[in-house]
Amino acid sequence: MPAKPVNPDLQKERSTATFNTREFSVLWAGGEERFKEKKALEKMFLEDPALQDDLPISYLSHKELYEHSLRKACIIGEKIRKLRADGEDGVDTYNALLGGSLGAAILKEGNPLALHYVMFVPTIMGQGTMDQQVEWLSKAWDCEIIGTYAQTELGHGTFLRGLETRADYDASTQEFVINTPSLSAYKWWPGGLGHTANHAVVVAQLYTKGEFRGLAPFIVQLRDSDTHRPMPGIDIGDIGTKLGMKGVNNGYLGLKNVRVPLNNMLMKNQQVLPDGTYVAPKNSVLTYGTMMFVRCALIRDTAQSLAKASTIATRYSAVRRQSPIDPNQPEPQIMDHTTQQLKLFPQIAKAIVFKTTGDGIWNMYNVISGEIEQGNLDRLPEMHALSCCLKAICSADAAAGVETCRLSCGGHGYMDCSNFPTIYGMTTAVCTYEGENTVMLLQTARYLVKVYGQALNGEKLVPTVSYISDAINQTKFVNFDGSLRSIVKAFQFVAANKTRIAYEQIELRRKQGHGTEVAANLCGTFLTAAADLHGRAFLAQTAYTELLALSREVSPELAEVLKVVLELYLVDACLNRIGDFLRFIDLTDQDVTKLEVRLENCLKRLRPNAVSLVDSFDLHDRVLDSALGAYDGNVYEHIFESTKKNPLNKEPVNGAFHKYLKPFMKAHL
Amino acid sequence: MPAKPVNPDLQKERSTATFNTREFSVLWAGGEERFKEKKALEKMFLEDPALQDDLPISYLSHKELYEHSLRKACIIGEKIRKLRADGEDGVDTYNALLGGSLGAAILKEGNPLALHYVMFVPTIMGQGTMDQQVEWLSKAWDCEIIGTYAQTELGHGTFLRGLETRADYDASTQEFVINTPSLSAYKWWPGGLGHTANHAVVVAQLYTKGEFRGLAPFIVQLRDSDTHRPMPGIDIGDIGTKLGMKGVNNGYLGLKNVRVPLNNMLMKNQQVLPDGTYVAPKNSVLTYGTMMFVRCALIRDTAQSLAKASTIATRYSAVRRQSPIDPNQPEPQIMDHTTQQLKLFPQIAKAIVFKTTGDGIWNMYNVISGEIEQGNLDRLPEMHALSCCLKAICSADAAAGVETCRLSCGGHGYMDCSNFPTIYGMTTAVCTYEGENTVMLLQTARYLVKVYGQALNGEKLVPTVSYISDAINQTKFVNFDGSLRSIVKAFQFVAANKTRIAYEQIELRRKQGHGTEVAANLCGTFLTAAADLHGRAFLAQTAYTELLALSREVSPELAEVLKVVLELYLVDACLNRIGDFLRFIDLTDQDVTKLEVRLENCLKRLRPNAVSLVDSFDLHDRVLDSALGAYDGNVYEHIFESTKKNPLNKEPVNGAFHKYLKPFMKAHL
Repeated sequence: MPAKPVNPDLQKERSTATFNTREFSVLWAGGEERFKEKKALEKMFLEDPALQDDLPISYLSHKELYEHSLRKACIIGEKIRKLRADGEDGVDTYNALLGGSLGAAILKEGNPLALHYVMFVPTIMGQGTMDQQVEWLSKAWDCEIIGTYAQTELGHGTFLRGLETRADYDASTQEFVINTPSLSAYKWWPGGLGHTANHAVVVAQLYTKGEFRGLAPFIVQLRDSDTHRPMPGIDIGDIGTKLGMKGVNNGYLGLKNVRVPLNNMLMKNQQVLPDGTYVAPKNSVLTYGTMMFVRCALIRDTAQSLAKASTIATRYSAVRRQSPIDPNQPEPQIMDHTTQQLKLFPQIAKAIVFKTTGDGIWNMYNVISGEIEQGNLDRLPEMHALSCCLKAICSADAAAGVETCRLSCGGHGYMDCSNFPTIYGMTTAVCTYEGENTVMLLQTARYLVKVYGQALNGEKLVPTVSYISDAINQTKFVNFDGSLRSIVKAFQFVAANKTRIAYEQIELRRKQGHGTEVAANLCGTFLTAAADLHGRAFLAQTAYTELLALSREVSPELAEVLKVVLELYLVDACLNRIGDFLRFIDLTDQDVTKLEVRLENCLKRLRPNAVSLVDSFDLHDRVLDSALGAYDGNVYEHIFESTKKNPLNKEPVNGAFHKYLKPFMKAHL
Repeated sequence: MPAKPVNPDLQKERSTATFNTREFSVLWAGGEERFKEKKALEKMFLEDPALQDDLPISYLSHKELYEHSLRKACIIGEKIRKLRADGEDGVDTYNALLGGSLGAAILKEGNPLALHYVMFVPTIMGQGTMDQQVEWLSKAWDCEIIGTYAQTELGHGTFLRGLETRADYDASTQEFVINTPSLSAYKWWPGGLGHTANHAVVVAQLYTKGEFRGLAPFIVQLRDSDTHRPMPGIDIGDIGTKLGMKGVNNGYLGLKNVRVPLNNMLMKNQQVLPDGTYVAPKNSVLTYGTMMFVRCALIRDTAQSLAKASTIATRYSAVRRQSPIDPNQPEPQIMDHTTQQLKLFPQIAKAIVFKTTGDGIWNMYNVISGEIEQGNLDRLPEMHALSCCLKAICSADAAAGVETCRLSCGGHGYMDCSNFPTIYGMTTAVCTYEGENTVMLLQTARYLVKVYGQALNGEKLVPTVSYISDAINQTKFVNFDGSLRSIVKAFQFVAANKTRIAYEQIELRRKQGHGTEVAANLCGTFLTAAADLHGRAFLAQTAYTELLALSREVSPELAEVLKVVLELYLVDACLNRIGDFLRFIDLTDQDVTKLEVRLENCLKRLRPNAVSLVDSFDLHDRVLDSALGAYDGNVYEHIFESTKKNPLNKEPVNGAFHKYLKPFMKAHL
């Protein structure tokens, strides 16, 4: 609870809410128990003075920030140890502390130990034999060793077969000899690799008996366990400053004739025998599973980014007053400008829809990965296609939404004390990592085109693409009556037609003599457009199904609000792709105007609950870390407080005046 | 010329160009003479070792960056002094050094002295009487005093009448007493205000004889000219870290009973007599002039941002290889992926079109401001409306384009050594300063709606909006034959219809009983959409007219390339607003597919000249300051070099290991 009285404009907003924010907060947290756990964790971590910053980290140099981050990462690590000793099993807790909101509240530019917990340990668990797990896990679990995961290289990312790092097995000593054959083969990007980790899982091209065997993971010791000096043959360091994730200590790694014992290759899936005989893996489905898992998790993260950004911008827009609407009236809260509402409210709606979709696809992932474990791979391609395009769409929309929120706060959004720059840095990164967005859309599109061919052949399609068969049997979309259901159906019809066009364009180019792959490349922009609409149709459908289902479970007051959110989301999504709608569905100018007026109407209906909706996201002030977005709404006071911490302001006259400015000003006198 | 051999892929690109890059470079610079001047300035400034950085500034703390920036700013100031002493009149040179590419190459996060040159001095020139100019200008010109311009307040930006700072005239001492009555009245944002300037023009609400008189500018001494300590009653400092413009020393200022002599009010336009009698200004048109001037200049800046970003991304895309198109072939240059071309080439085209439009509107501004000086204000509203929406559109498109270029470079674009984060920070700022973009669009829209009413009354419209009359007389757009001319005409038809809808929606709400201003606010999103299309129609028209005119003046080879650029720009612009086209013009699904195939075709035709086009922008490696975008294309080498400068990498083991990590790792042993 805030110590200062709440800004009266913000107080007024809260008093006019038509629903109970706590009801929504509990729902958002995943139920009463989760809600209480969240509050307890926040208390434990955010009230610890050792984890608070006297000086905002934006004032630190890169080197200072690293040292600061490592200090806090070790405190968090120590707390995790204690929690574990107390019997806390921890998976949710670790996620919250390392990747989630809570982690971001403590180390907003990332944790240099995070990859140890979320990649190094899980890789050993997933790819090590039982014996290897016994050998390495206890050390890793206790943080006796700190590891990271080194796969991407300076010159190679998406295309794994292009990796250059190589491991040659030397049967005479039963060792692998690992080398970085060129500059572009340097490992690049792994978090914590720079100066933190002393071990890494290094992914390399395996050669045994002089033959190439494909990629394999090796545990490599990078630094001496006592002195932390780089081991012989290891060239290692920090890759430098970045747009965001500034505290992560992303590193580079070159290896020169680094020898590791046979047993350092993780051998659960493939083996090298002492004599160099290679035993190939049975299948590579498991890797798909991990990637899907990560992408599903990222969809939830994008919802969290939007929740943060929209909370800050909405609270600020309730407090900030500017530009009279009626020249005879005082300046209104800027949230009363319709143009401002159009910037903010769709982001709130997207936060809710992405969260709902993220939860939904998470459940779907669990069902399907259960099926996979039982050897049923039927739904794997469908799930893969869906997770790819949703990762791309949600991250791109979230990044754009964060910037829309920032820009809606005018100049003040540009200040680091708004926290928008950091939120953007973290959010836009999702567009690139774990599968670059365009690559993701192309993967989805390849699936869609294949499925389209099956549908043409009359084959029955799996649930999430069955709308394609429907559209093939329906040359014209009828009955667009503007109902939410018909908007969802129209989205599917439009998506099916975008896939049709991509399919037809590829066929056309094949008939012109191009091979399938070249034809697909020529049609790249048709393909990404089809995948985009597939994902958006799924989002529309999920929003419709899930939010209506939810509204049947909650109080009538909250149900009303959720329905406005749903309508706003769908009408806005439709208008954002109106070109595609008009292309495939007979709509008149007046129909479009009607949708636009309806959007305006949705904004008006959401307006009284805007602040309470973002309050319901229940983001702790430390999570928001924003002078513009604090719960108490004392925006100008918080901004002003932040300037008092600025090291430049600790001295009335900066030394550079005497050194440079005064001599310059007096030079001609 | 680069010392290292050029990357062979980049060399190959250059050798396949179909036109002479120097011809285009000269054109881009504004003629042979300007081209030579540019080269001479680059030599003078960029080869001076005192103006080079050993350490990339992204590694500095905020305080260090300020001191570093002030040092360089003083060196630049000294050089400007010398140039002036040598008889260089300087306006272009100052602009290049303080705001342009050259300035950005020396001080990429901005110059804390810039506002002294570009706002303080010009304000005295524009608003001071002859006597005041004599008194202040020589001191300011010689940098004996350093000034800034303080208008915006913590709680007040766009709406100037809302400013709170007040100046009360005390006739007994012939002084003004200036006060900051509240926290939200603190001056906020002025560059150099924090610790650099010792004077400022402070804009305040003027009261004389107890009566309110409106805004007036006052010269206020902020700091002692010798000790640089803040003067009595002055509360001053740096506002803190920001998304960009990190070296500008943006400051805050509170005034408590600060007394300045009568003559410190700039009195060219309005006067206060010694007894407190107030003489009001004749008209406020001159202020409009300055704002238009600045906005026209900003349009050129956005072209420069796109030129920089597209140069970096295009060169990188020629060097980077990834993901085979044909699985049997090696990884291609990523520029061969059609999806990558769609990211890059439209940004190149926009850079050229925005530059052309910026030049065109600059000439238009000069003509119209000449008319204004002769008392002819006829074209002022038209010019104002145009400069507002173009500022908004070009800045928004440029910021989005920079991000598209950054994302097209994958993870490497996220590193500061790519220079994208800085370019984005500088570019997105333009969306907010000198008129926030939504406010700008609303200003344009208000003009359009007024003009629409005039057209309905049969009044003759001025040239840039005459298409509205045409559309009123034409219920249906016929003859969309896909020619470039018909795309331009269609853009105008669509724009006119967007204005029609905004007009009709306002009328509808007025009939429902709302006042005009409230009705306009309700229709805010219709209004901004209309202004957006107005600006885009103007850009399409200008691109068409100017680039075709240009192509008649240049070699046939260059003319061919310019025509491809024009076609790409227009087809892409049309597809980006295809919803509006389909709404008002009868186009079929097949028509749209045809446009999409044509876009693909434009990309293919531009492909062989892409690198040479960006080479023609002739951006010095220091201006680009990018490991990804250097002329020699040795991308991986440059990235690697940048890590060698990283202070973290100067020690094999960081001190934080001994302090935090080792105790943590060994805690349980």
